[in-house]
Amino acid sequence: MKDTQINVLKDISLDNPIFIEALPGIGHVGKLAADHMIDELGATKFAEIYSPHFPPQVFVDEDGIVENMINEFHYLKSQGKNKRDFIILVGNAQGLSPEGQYELCDTILDFVKEYGVKEMYTLGGLAIGHPTGESRVFGAATNFEIIEILKEAGIEIRSADGGIVGASGLLLGLGKLKNLDGACLMGETPGYFIDAEAAESLLKKLTTLLNIEINTEKLDERAEETRKMILKAQQMEQEIINRNIGSGEDDLRYIG
Amino acid sequence: MKDTQINVLKDISLDNPIFIEALPGIGHVGKLAADHMIDELGATKFAEIYSPHFPPQVFVDEDGIVENMINEFHYLKSQGKNKRDFIILVGNAQGLSPEGQYELCDTILDFVKEYGVKEMYTLGGLAIGHPTGESRVFGAATNFEIIEILKEAGIEIRSADGGIVGASGLLLGLGKLKNLDGACLMGETPGYFIDAEAAESLLKKLTTLLNIEINTEKLDERAEETRKMILKAQQMEQEIINRNIGSGEDDLRYIG
Amino acid sequence: MKDTQINVLKDISLDNPIFIEALPGIGHVGKLAADHMIDELGATKFAEIYSPHFPPQVFVDEDGIVENMINEFHYLKSQGKNKRDFIILVGNAQGLSPEGQYELCDTILDFVKEYGVKEMYTLGGLAIGHPTGESRVFGAATNFEIIEILKEAGIEIRSADGGIVGASGLLLGLGKLKNLDGACLMGETPGYFIDAEAAESLLKKLTTLLNIEINTEKLDERAEETRKMILKAQQMEQEIINRNIGSGEDDLRYIG
Amino acid sequence: MKDTQINVLKDISLDNPIFIEALPGIGHVGKLAADHMIDELGATKFAEIYSPHFPPQVFVDEDGIVENMINEFHYLKSQGKNKRDFIILVGNAQGLSPEGQYELCDTILDFVKEYGVKEMYTLGGLAIGHPTGESRVFGAATNFEIIEILKEAGIEIRSADGGIVGASGLLLGLGKLKNLDGACLMGETPGYFIDAEAAESLLKKLTTLLNIEINTEKLDERAEETRKMILKAQQMEQEIINRNIGSGEDDLRYIG
Repeated sequence: MKDTQINVLKDISLDNPIFIEALPGIGHVGKLAADHMIDELGATKFAEIYSPHFPPQVFVDEDGIVENMINEFHYLKSQGKNKRDFIILVGNAQGLSPEGQYELCDTILDFVKEYGVKEMYTLGGLAIGHPTGESRVFGAATNFEIIEILKEAGIEIRSADGGIVGASGLLLGLGKLKNLDGACLMGETPGYFIDAEAAESLLKKLTTLLNIEINTEKLDERAEETRKMILKAQQMEQEIINRNIGSGEDDLRYIG
Repeated sequence: MKDTQINVLKDISLDNPIFIEALPGIGHVGKLAADHMIDELGATKFAEIYSPHFPPQVFVDEDGIVENMINEFHYLKSQGKNKRDFIILVGNAQGLSPEGQYELCDTILDFVKEYGVKEMYTLGGLAIGHPTGESRVFGAATNFEIIEILKEAGIEIRSADGGIVGASGLLLGLGKLKNLDGACLMGETPGYFIDAEAAESLLKKLTTLLNIEINTEKLDERAEETRKMILKAQQMEQEIINRNIGSGEDDLRYIG
Repeated sequence: MKDTQINVLKDISLDNPIFIEALPGIGHVGKLAADHMIDELGATKFAEIYSPHFPPQVFVDEDGIVENMINEFHYLKSQGKNKRDFIILVGNAQGLSPEGQYELCDTILDFVKEYGVKEMYTLGGLAIGHPTGESRVFGAATNFEIIEILKEAGIEIRSADGGIVGASGLLLGLGKLKNLDGACLMGETPGYFIDAEAAESLLKKLTTLLNIEINTEKLDERAEETRKMILKAQQMEQEIINRNIGSGEDDLRYIG
Repeated sequence: MKDTQINVLKDISLDNPIFIEALPGIGHVGKLAADHMIDELGATKFAEIYSPHFPPQVFVDEDGIVENMINEFHYLKSQGKNKRDFIILVGNAQGLSPEGQYELCDTILDFVKEYGVKEMYTLGGLAIGHPTGESRVFGAATNFEIIEILKEAGIEIRSADGGIVGASGLLLGLGKLKNLDGACLMGETPGYFIDAEAAESLLKKLTTLLNIEINTEKLDERAEETRKMILKAQQMEQEIINRNIGSGEDDLRYIG
């Protein structure tokens, strides 16, 4: 696999869909919210991304079946009071290298533009490093009109006190160059555990903005599942370290 | 060398061969088992891989002869009760960068598919970080049918408690995308030494699955040889560190 | 975005312009000086660079609007006693990888050559790690004639006691290969804060060399703004660290 | 600069030349020996390599003139009792990335093959981490015939106790794939200073093998010069660190 590839699983036609992105990130806040949205609203997967820029590994599921690193596009038609269509991107990995991140985000944007996307929301967490009271939701956007809409929804504007690293930021930035507008919503979180409360706060603001309704009762349950997945990932990381210790041959880093 | 290249040394024709991979990894468990299998059954090398994604170095053998970083394909015809053909991939290196790993695994799979491969076993070690009693063998697979076959062979299914990093995992993952099925077998090992016992446990399960017989008497001897090779690799690593210390000029890492 | 792209915003024609580069670096000395020059002399942006070699992130401005990583070309016509034209390159990022730095500097040089550039000044800081008295300005150049000109301007020649890392050095080096001449001017700075005094010293030498006049009164104010921007960047860095801590999934580094 | 480029400065014709490589490495043993050989025998530069795989920086010489990272080919005609021609490769940098090292070594080998090269010697240091008595010279080779020649010259064969990292190893390895033969000679050195004695020992063995004579009186003087160059490089490294500390903006490493 030399290039990122998108496999389209189902031919669909959408009417001016809103694009929502939530790849793995801080406290899994965005991912948790988007996975929940997909389940509760019954979104359908219609395309998937495989990329040499993802980590070179597989996960193993509960049944022992290997799973590729993947990003998945789901769609929803005619949701909420405004009968809007949606494309939701979730997955288990982001690009590793800077160049890989740019290539992936560029590929993703060109793909969703083909379905008529003109606006997007990227979802993430904002790590504050200490326990939060009530989890606030912060936002940034590609233009002033959207900033005003975020303010009306009670979202705090993140002004000049930080930036956005990874796909959630880069999709907005590269989107601007492709005439796409949008906002990044970030749920405040301590940052060091899977934060279902931050995801719930984030989801409430998102549903207000999208004019849809989503039941959040099962979000805690989902957070528990995510915690298990994270634990798996951490064990894999430990395995990498062990592997490195255990094998003199493949832990050679070229230096000079 | 700008791209990975495969040199075919011998034109062969195989009948529905099973592909077995065992590149360097944790405790050299897989490599030890596969190298032993090649020797005991008299497999013949028929192709080799050189790649710019391997570490930029050579090894020096017992006679002072330099050896390239290499992956080597061997074949066996009409083995065991089922008269099956095999392709076995071993070597002294894996790709260093994520993109390099993807490119190599993709190239390997396309190559073995040309010989009619439809199923594969990837061999590795599972580091547990402390001494093992009897070394167990763990497995993961690309589908449920193979999971059942592994269970029948007394292999413990690795469920949701970890992933598989490097070629052993990626070959299965990318294989799924190419309609290849298979399993990864992992011999439990402390992870910090060359583990002939883990390799023997692994080999026993593998021969059961493959319905072939392999004498494991000389495995200890082989482990001793591997230990020497590892020692060589560790000294080389020390050399890299020394090199870096000794040369102000080539230890410059660009940061900004 | 697979390649660096230059967007030309305005068609202009320049007469033998002098190219001035000041991308982010030590103490932001060069950037501060060049940003001030652009503002005071009213330079006009005419082209911008986006690149997959920049960090994969966006900044957020005072109003919550996301800003891409970018390099920007500005021009000035008929400045100073010699009525010279100028192209000034500033921005918020440099390339991350060595290959990315080479590709960017090569692209930049080819671009400015199209406008008739034959000479250039690259601006930077020289970190000495302790407080400076009066900030001296050091220089290096592509030929002896320019070295003499620097000496006449009271610039201390940096001889064999160091090198120049990043765009300020590489532009001169690659420029030599393209028959461009020039000098790097480095304002002495402790290196660990935004140094308006070093920028002022640098700007005074630059204006002497260019035979132009620039009011430096507002430089302190600009330094304060830059300090805020830096603080933002540092918080973002902290965020990356937190993100990594908070998410087991995306802090996997492939090792073997 | 997107690719490695070789600039040929002078059209020459050589008769079955021997290729000698000595790029920066451990204790600068090889570089010191080769630079001395070039000076003492009056070799002429005829080609140079620039590459985006070199560090993105320039050096500054005694006069303040910037110098690109570079590899340089020199030639000698009709040397010693056997009237042999030589190509000698020296420089101030090696490739940084593994892929860059492979690309550079491949390019170098293809280039010297055009001049009729069939054999080569790569020169380096062997760091032992503690003071040496009399500096021994170790060797490894691409075939048994050369191993015998090395032994006859009093060179100790490095057998299975290490490998060779970087250009000195990779040129031999890739050379084997291109039907070039050769040896790597490594001067034993503590590894943490510029080792003129190790270079002298190395040069004595090399001249024996090549059947030429080289006066080594000025080698100490050259070592002193090299020490200054190294000091410059170390200061540059410190500068990189300072730069990074001093600039919040460009020390962002993308992690997730």
